[in-house]
Amino acid sequence: MKLAVRLVDIAARGVLLHQQDAKSLGVFPGDRVEITNPSTGISIADYVETTSSLIKQGKLGIYHQSNEQLQVSDGQSLEVRVADRPVSLDYIRKKMDGDRLSREEIRMIVSDIVHDNLSPSEITAFVISSYINNLDIDEIEYLTRSMVETGDRLEFHTGPIVDKHSIGGVPGNKITFLVVPIIAAAGLLIPKTSSRAITGAGGTADLMEVLAPVEFSAVEVQQMTQKVGGVIVWGGATNIAPADDKIILQEYPFKIDQIGQMIASVMAKKFAVGAHVVAIDIPVGKYCKVHSIPEGQKLAQTFIEIGGRLGMRVECALTYGDAPVGRAIGPALEVKEALAILEGAASPNSLIEKSTVIAGIAFELAGKANRGEGMALALEILASGKALKKMKEIIAIQGGNPEITSDMVKPGEFSHVVKADRDGYVVEMNNRSLISIARTAGAPNDHGAGLYIHAKPGTHLSRGDPIFTLYAERKWRLEKALEIARTLRPIMVEGMLIDRVPNHQEWIPSRPQSNGVE
Amino acid sequence: MKLAVRLVDIAARGVLLHQQDAKSLGVFPGDRVEITNPSTGISIADYVETTSSLIKQGKLGIYHQSNEQLQVSDGQSLEVRVADRPVSLDYIRKKMDGDRLSREEIRMIVSDIVHDNLSPSEITAFVISSYINNLDIDEIEYLTRSMVETGDRLEFHTGPIVDKHSIGGVPGNKITFLVVPIIAAAGLLIPKTSSRAITGAGGTADLMEVLAPVEFSAVEVQQMTQKVGGVIVWGGATNIAPADDKIILQEYPFKIDQIGQMIASVMAKKFAVGAHVVAIDIPVGKYCKVHSIPEGQKLAQTFIEIGGRLGMRVECALTYGDAPVGRAIGPALEVKEALAILEGAASPNSLIEKSTVIAGIAFELAGKANRGEGMALALEILASGKALKKMKEIIAIQGGNPEITSDMVKPGEFSHVVKADRDGYVVEMNNRSLISIARTAGAPNDHGAGLYIHAKPGTHLSRGDPIFTLYAERKWRLEKALEIARTLRPIMVEGMLIDRVPNHQEWIPSRPQSNGVE
Repeated sequence: MKLAVRLVDIAARGVLLHQQDAKSLGVFPGDRVEITNPSTGISIADYVETTSSLIKQGKLGIYHQSNEQLQVSDGQSLEVRVADRPVSLDYIRKKMDGDRLSREEIRMIVSDIVHDNLSPSEITAFVISSYINNLDIDEIEYLTRSMVETGDRLEFHTGPIVDKHSIGGVPGNKITFLVVPIIAAAGLLIPKTSSRAITGAGGTADLMEVLAPVEFSAVEVQQMTQKVGGVIVWGGATNIAPADDKIILQEYPFKIDQIGQMIASVMAKKFAVGAHVVAIDIPVGKYCKVHSIPEGQKLAQTFIEIGGRLGMRVECALTYGDAPVGRAIGPALEVKEALAILEGAASPNSLIEKSTVIAGIAFELAGKANRGEGMALALEILASGKALKKMKEIIAIQGGNPEITSDMVKPGEFSHVVKADRDGYVVEMNNRSLISIARTAGAPNDHGAGLYIHAKPGTHLSRGDPIFTLYAERKWRLEKALEIARTLRPIMVEGMLIDRVPNHQEWIPSRPQSNGVE
Repeated sequence: MKLAVRLVDIAARGVLLHQQDAKSLGVFPGDRVEITNPSTGISIADYVETTSSLIKQGKLGIYHQSNEQLQVSDGQSLEVRVADRPVSLDYIRKKMDGDRLSREEIRMIVSDIVHDNLSPSEITAFVISSYINNLDIDEIEYLTRSMVETGDRLEFHTGPIVDKHSIGGVPGNKITFLVVPIIAAAGLLIPKTSSRAITGAGGTADLMEVLAPVEFSAVEVQQMTQKVGGVIVWGGATNIAPADDKIILQEYPFKIDQIGQMIASVMAKKFAVGAHVVAIDIPVGKYCKVHSIPEGQKLAQTFIEIGGRLGMRVECALTYGDAPVGRAIGPALEVKEALAILEGAASPNSLIEKSTVIAGIAFELAGKANRGEGMALALEILASGKALKKMKEIIAIQGGNPEITSDMVKPGEFSHVVKADRDGYVVEMNNRSLISIARTAGAPNDHGAGLYIHAKPGTHLSRGDPIFTLYAERKWRLEKALEIARTLRPIMVEGMLIDRVPNHQEWIPSRPQSNGVE
């Protein structure tokens, strides 16, 4: 059927047909049609959407992303043919029906995801079927390999290349800012790609942005790493394992993180940057992705197994995840805290210990230290000032200011100190609530937003002692964050909520005023 | 955040934000924002898509369907706020996790589907989770009720109201053209809504279109039924159980038909038209949706149970589904065959028998005939000519020509007779292949396309006897259909393919020429 092009500027793949034309062609929404640019011979198979009002009969709406490939102009007449549906839909159906997918089947699905040959709904179907029916170890391996194959890769001619990864879920987990410079200062290469926060208060890439640009191509990542030994960049700007972002996009509405897809996502990125050794930090805790030690051990075994299949030496550390790492949550506050340690600060100890444990594992895997001696080497490099020097080189090569010091990194100008209303011990922190409060204050987009914890679990407090300080760049955000802090009760002292929130409502005598809050 | 409207004319719900604005707001694709028209106070919560190129920072792209509600103009400045995600996403997640959904949860999901509060991907997630984890009998009931509640309903003040339904899968199943006029001729009301073919060679609505318009509102369906006793209309044009079409749209790419959703879809439509008694035809056969008698019995029990819970008397007939019903496949051919029987033709017997069995069940359920005597009453009404007279009234009230006769209904002008190349018996028909061939010939859109079967299973054929005639409205379609007929082998005679296809390729001596085809 001949139809006249009408370009539609939405950022998607797809073609829009009038219902009558669709009927004549015998296609329904979701079917594929093939369209060819007669001048170039380039043809694409694209999924059909139909309308009875927005496109006239005889017209063919072509969405922006489809036309990036096709390159046709408004009004041009094109031949439209019915095309076969992608076979990957049959493979997704297999997964729905509980069957195991072969390497070739997974490769085809991932390739179709990367090349936008599957609609968002079709990708969702793959994601949900994998979530419900699970992926076995072979499928995880195939998924990992397919993610690598469909993206860019770094190729270093020296080695060993080191990488690290922390499973998300713990606020304040800024260890990358210590691990990367320590590793690089030891003469190893660590091309670290990181993510931005989706549901957290700040991903490593959000944090690094406080210090330097983070968006680079794979080639640039490789070149910078070769020059200074390490980088801290945003993985999303590279074309490394690009399938992953498209999969995560479909998981997001349901707050799921399918375990096999998560492992494939992590391991694909490690493999694609050419890592030989990988240290993985698995926080275990009530509000973490992993809730128990046995669960963490099982996950660790799978990481190790997949790593082995791909020729990488992987070791995992199950870490304490029931409280934030260090005391700072939010981009500027976290970067400030990490820089201070590089500059020689002796606390917070949780941050120093965790960072050097992870760096130590990497040293041992890479043969830089004997078994059991990696952490000492990491501490030594940290104490020597070499890690600070290396961090400045990294900041410089990414285009930031290498003269920066922790003092120069400022949190937001609006702040409020939340104090204890009674004597007692801090008995519990709710990581999820702390994150919500930081996000409400503006993190991660407002770099200065976040919170600084004065009293961690086990600390004894007297009435009036500060528990945490909340920071924001905008006043209304601070107020809103304080408001939800009252509801969420993020830090418990002897089982009571400790908080102080200004109440602007009129005083109503019948409402009980004393709830343990000063 | 204040953004300036830019209307985007695609037929969807959604708003398009520049990535930077999305970041400042702290929203990701799939999140919801609330936007309000300041002049009217109307506000909508809509899902976010992001772009880095198509919309400038400071602009807010609003898709057509969203603006139908919102009614804002290009350039207008609007306040955009982060909105909560619909709670139905949590319920879908529950279903993913294998939990049972409550009545209220299903009601919320269906309501959000109908009101376009869920994106196509989110609807897919519901469909796939229900497919994999199944719906139990309570969930099917809730889904049925929710589908009814979110759409239009007919309210007749007389009764009993009759309805029928055939589970799809068997080609040539035009029994509605006999059942509806027989029932209506007996003085009962049968407001029959039907579907168009999605994967078949012609749905009842496609067939009826050969005789009269089929697109009416629920109110018109009710009025016409009250006047002449019955109609045969396209359900998709009414607003009866509108959730169903949106669910089917998401099932389509994967060729799935989740059993619970299918039952809910059928029963919701029956309940919404006010049916008191329902006869359900469940074809059982190799290429049908139901493959065995026990499977059919189980399905029948669920239909009966759901019917009972909604106060409808349901009876099911398991019917022979291994061969087409009658001899004609494709809109015009099928209508011609049905009209001929109404006019007095004594064959094909399979069609007469099946139609009067189903009509008979309805008579017995409605108390028009004693148990075991319904079919005789149906045959009597058919023989009396009253059913033909009633069919003409139905055609007339829907705006068609009541003077039409079976002779006047013509198949496509291009045809080819496929003949037997040997003596033998017809041993098997492949319904799926017959449908593919009819579709390739142009059915259901080209009303004249289809095939007429001369020899059904068990028939003895001599060499040169016709097996079937293929019809098309366009020559190239006929040729293409003949081509695939050779590949698909739709009708087997003594285990050999019977077909005759002109071969336009050069003769290559080394290729074997004899494969049992003349």
